[in-house]
Amino acid sequence: MTKLIALFRKPADPAEFDRHYRDTHTPLVKKYPGLRKLEITRITGAPIGETRHYLMAEMYFDDKDAMDSALASSEGKAVARDLMSFAADVVTVFFGEEEPMQK
Amino acid sequence: MTKLIALFRKPADPAEFDRHYRDTHTPLVKKYPGLRKLEITRITGAPIGETRHYLMAEMYFDDKDAMDSALASSEGKAVARDLMSFAADVVTVFFGEEEPMQK
Repeated sequence: MTKLIALFRKPADPAEFDRHYRDTHTPLVKKYPGLRKLEITRITGAPIGETRHYLMAEMYFDDKDAMDSALASSEGKAVARDLMSFAADVVTVFFGEEEPMQK
Repeated sequence: MTKLIALFRKPADPAEFDRHYRDTHTPLVKKYPGLRKLEITRITGAPIGETRHYLMAEMYFDDKDAMDSALASSEGKAVARDLMSFAADVVTVFFGEEEPMQK
């Protein structure tokens, strides 16, 4: 599968970020055409030292074509627009392919 | 579940990195006591601009206690030692809790 990954650094106002993420952003993400799975991880620490990360969202699609279509759709544009409205300064977005070798 | 996440930036020698990661590091990771799932994602791009990320490994444990035990075990120490031998300059490690709300 192809995974779209949004990695967020600690926001200035975590409570406000969480509220917007839960009530406004996640409902938009769930409308991505072709979305197979959404996995959200709340980052809580690091084995050594501290972490500057806060939250990670992973969106799974069948393949890169499906992800590209989702990003280009009106629903995808609404996600991007909302993301930029509340997290432009703390988010990094990238994508990749799940490797078959798994336990 | 608790996820331990290793995020790698692009290595100086990708072919050598891939070889070591596949043949030496992954077999050690699979020996973590209590490891429930290993998901490896090969990062291939970003929706806007480029990405400096190269690979992401996600290791799933039942809970934080299970992860802490795995990290403290002799197998966990072997993973850490090997990681530092080939990826100290390109890896960031952090952990978090999977959120229940999922599609």
